[in-house]
Amino acid sequence: MTSTHAAPLASRLAKVPFVSVDNMMRLVHRVGLRRMLVDLAHEIEQDFLRWEQFDKTPRVASHSDVGVIELMPTSDGALYGFKYVNGHPKNMAEGLQTVTAFGLLAEVSSGYPVLLSEMTLLTALRTAAMSALAGRHLAPKDARTMAVIGNGAQSEFQCLAFAEIVGFTTVRLYDIDRDATRKCAHNLAGNGLTIIPCETPDEATEGADIITTVTADKRSSTILTDNMDGPGVHINAIGGDCPGKTELQPDILHRSDIFVEYPPQTRVEGEIQQLAPDHPVIELWQVMAGLRPGRERPGQITLFDSVGFAIEDFWALRYVRQEAQETGLYEDLDMVADPDDPRDLFGMLMRAQP
Amino acid sequence: MTSTHAAPLASRLAKVPFVSVDNMMRLVHRVGLRRMLVDLAHEIEQDFLRWEQFDKTPRVASHSDVGVIELMPTSDGALYGFKYVNGHPKNMAEGLQTVTAFGLLAEVSSGYPVLLSEMTLLTALRTAAMSALAGRHLAPKDARTMAVIGNGAQSEFQCLAFAEIVGFTTVRLYDIDRDATRKCAHNLAGNGLTIIPCETPDEATEGADIITTVTADKRSSTILTDNMDGPGVHINAIGGDCPGKTELQPDILHRSDIFVEYPPQTRVEGEIQQLAPDHPVIELWQVMAGLRPGRERPGQITLFDSVGFAIEDFWALRYVRQEAQETGLYEDLDMVADPDDPRDLFGMLMRAQP
Repeated sequence: MTSTHAAPLASRLAKVPFVSVDNMMRLVHRVGLRRMLVDLAHEIEQDFLRWEQFDKTPRVASHSDVGVIELMPTSDGALYGFKYVNGHPKNMAEGLQTVTAFGLLAEVSSGYPVLLSEMTLLTALRTAAMSALAGRHLAPKDARTMAVIGNGAQSEFQCLAFAEIVGFTTVRLYDIDRDATRKCAHNLAGNGLTIIPCETPDEATEGADIITTVTADKRSSTILTDNMDGPGVHINAIGGDCPGKTELQPDILHRSDIFVEYPPQTRVEGEIQQLAPDHPVIELWQVMAGLRPGRERPGQITLFDSVGFAIEDFWALRYVRQEAQETGLYEDLDMVADPDDPRDLFGMLMRAQP
Repeated sequence: MTSTHAAPLASRLAKVPFVSVDNMMRLVHRVGLRRMLVDLAHEIEQDFLRWEQFDKTPRVASHSDVGVIELMPTSDGALYGFKYVNGHPKNMAEGLQTVTAFGLLAEVSSGYPVLLSEMTLLTALRTAAMSALAGRHLAPKDARTMAVIGNGAQSEFQCLAFAEIVGFTTVRLYDIDRDATRKCAHNLAGNGLTIIPCETPDEATEGADIITTVTADKRSSTILTDNMDGPGVHINAIGGDCPGKTELQPDILHRSDIFVEYPPQTRVEGEIQQLAPDHPVIELWQVMAGLRPGRERPGQITLFDSVGFAIEDFWALRYVRQEAQETGLYEDLDMVADPDDPRDLFGMLMRAQP
């Protein structure tokens, strides 16, 4: 503080606020889970309305035989953010998460990080908020029943976000592993939903107004076949999210109006990797901005081919930064070297000699 | 430990070892600065020899009017690593570092992070080790004098690495800011070098066998003009490292044999962005592997057009991981959500309810 007038800025930026898994859980409970899902959906919608201000880059993926590691950067000119995320379907059998993530925000003006945060939980929250927001524009207005195919780590978040933001009363659960369905039903109990565990995917989708597919296999599976989706249904396809990984039979795609986050990324990673590269799709931000219609007629099948996009993580991180500042639920991390004279990195190192 | 045989793996991976700035400084002093520079150069050379095993991607840059933020990922199939690094030349006037960085290593097999580390200091160390390693192959054998143009945060590390790995006795310093030169001379005192502060770049380069340019301006400056480099000199050009940022007059480039790390990246970011896209360059790994000659004749001007490449950070991180494990100089970071049942992220969150 004594050497130059700039020292306070340097000192303020030298420590990076870090939101641990533990603090993220506290933060969710402090805000309230349902309230946080609604807040995140609201944030998402606000940023979709300024879609064109963002620096949009398809993510940088490093594929291996057993999974993928991705970096997802974006910027709105004031803040820069990126998420590190992996996807390893075989992890579950080893007691590990299929998807883990963390993220960072930095000031564009200085390049200094201003937030590091766990994002395994936050990704589940923002994905659910994004799905439900798309559902609000695309699902039938009087939707009563949602089928959820795949009852793993993301499934309860999807159910609660749809219940809060779209509204439905009955959820029909199916998973190839019955323990997963039992776990999901147990976790959802007490939330005012009628919960129906099902024996087959066909049984789960019977009479459903919304079908959410959220499975983890890293290959082209056919979770949903053409006879399973009735007219007027909204399909929320979460699990087909990297090259070679899809969940839907192509026939369904041909009968649906397809809504996507960012076409250059979705054509490589989403369900529509099965279609011609010029197959028409509608960008969701245009629906939110009122430039394109969402659901137009009763018998229409709508499909949100969700792959997850960097901007969704950006606004989730921004939200967490604000809430962490307000609640104090973060630690300071000694991550940025901060010599008194910025040219004197060497001197700082030498003065630290024991 | 009681629930499944997989729990120990999950528990081991749930905490991410973090090397703070403070612990990095302790680690450097524990190993010894000169020893660490030599070790890093050795690691670099080993990995250059298995160059073709690496996943090589030019870095992902986000440019603004005042600087750049970059992500530099790579993988050798067993470990995945990336570095976050910014470059903001105007930062110094605000008391901030021009370059700050941190990095991460993860297991390719699980996607779980296994190291988070500060890299502002580590980048200075690995850049100096890389420069000196190139110098060992390219500088004249009897080099006595090095000129250093630009006496900022990187300069002392460059001098010590060259002194240790290439060997020279006299350093001639120049910076547009005399305080920077004074600081550099002060920091280098007691290292057995003759230190000559100079008033002009011409004076600094007079009689030099090695010329290191390491300035920070984000534009095309002409730090080194064609009359300043005598025959037989080795030029170690560090500062020209992003589009629109160069330090050397094109005439020098035309008279030099140019050595680079990774041509697709250097042609966009290095000094050779001033040349035709097919101007011949030599890949440094081929020199180290004995496939191409380094310095061949006395009058030859060699130029290492250094921009910094992801693989250099990868081996530096690997080295730090090993040293941190051995010395215990790290903290455990609660960065990865770790439910007992990996499908039960939601249950973990609910059980944390206060």
